[in-house]
Amino acid sequence: MADETLWLPSLVLALHRNRHAPYSRFVQMATIRADGRPANRTIVFRGFFDDSPRLTFVSDARSPKVHELERSPWCELCWYFPVTHEQFRISGPTVVVGQNSDDVSLEARRKIWCQLAEPVRVSFTWPAPGNPRDGRVPFPSIHPDQETPVSHFCLLILDPQEVDLLELNGNPQHRWIFHREGPDHWQGTEVNP
Amino acid sequence: MADETLWLPSLVLALHRNRHAPYSRFVQMATIRADGRPANRTIVFRGFFDDSPRLTFVSDARSPKVHELERSPWCELCWYFPVTHEQFRISGPTVVVGQNSDDVSLEARRKIWCQLAEPVRVSFTWPAPGNPRDGRVPFPSIHPDQETPVSHFCLLILDPQEVDLLELNGNPQHRWIFHREGPDHWQGTEVNP
Repeated sequence: MADETLWLPSLVLALHRNRHAPYSRFVQMATIRADGRPANRTIVFRGFFDDSPRLTFVSDARSPKVHELERSPWCELCWYFPVTHEQFRISGPTVVVGQNSDDVSLEARRKIWCQLAEPVRVSFTWPAPGNPRDGRVPFPSIHPDQETPVSHFCLLILDPQEVDLLELNGNPQHRWIFHREGPDHWQGTEVNP
Repeated sequence: MADETLWLPSLVLALHRNRHAPYSRFVQMATIRADGRPANRTIVFRGFFDDSPRLTFVSDARSPKVHELERSPWCELCWYFPVTHEQFRISGPTVVVGQNSDDVSLEARRKIWCQLAEPVRVSFTWPAPGNPRDGRVPFPSIHPDQETPVSHFCLLILDPQEVDLLELNGNPQHRWIFHREGPDHWQGTEVNP
């Protein structure tokens, strides 16, 4: 597998082979807080962007991760597949596409909004995440337009630059590190696990 | 649950209720690389330290995460429990206990070494993780002494200072943030999910 761009078909295959585990699309995303400390949370993979290796996620603009990515775009995903025992660590810069973005990604933002499950769209109408909650006040039950994203809905697009793939099956395990060296050029090396 | 230190019994309960999922002890640990970018990988929880809320993990001293923690001790765990749908984000400074440490943790390091499964102990005799692998050369099959840790075996001890607990069951979900305000004093607040 070394010296090729085989991390992407490996990831596609892992998504297929783990498709019955609902949390196989749950990924941990590490970012840098304003104070320089790391933040880490689970986020749901929403598919590849435009038939490219870029990965999409969604977020509320009021969430700290959006501010962290706008300040320090480079993040690292850790994606563990429980059925096939594979770990992908994927790092690269992430672009935040909000309502004021003016490039082609705005249409992708709208498309992904339309495809979200209804309860996820509703959750974007709730009060700001992380603010103190008043348990006596029920959350509003607003059903936003399915075609028009709410203003603070953001699409996140991560452009992978480095991938560390660990296959835990086997003794010793197998591990490869892939670096992107050009627009369509990757270099891969098998390394010790 | 607000205003109490209930994250710890919640975590103990989650470990119990998810005990049949082998990967319920797999945690994603985010650290800071020397270049300021985040790193994120899966690591296995090895139990609480000395009946305290401190969490233990093990690592090879030759692994980048040890150097990252020695340089920037503050890390953040993301721990997702698939059976009960709970996420714990736990952050705080992490101490690396290697063979030259001179405090009481050395005995804990030895104990955890003794308790490891044999294949895990053997893996510490392999060539340095992350170095290029020569597929033609089999890894050594050395069985290290069960009582005496190899020199580069490290114990990691994380001392939680902040915990963000999200219960995904329920609509809306429930979320609390706990801050440590003294040796045995925590403050908790329910926040919007």
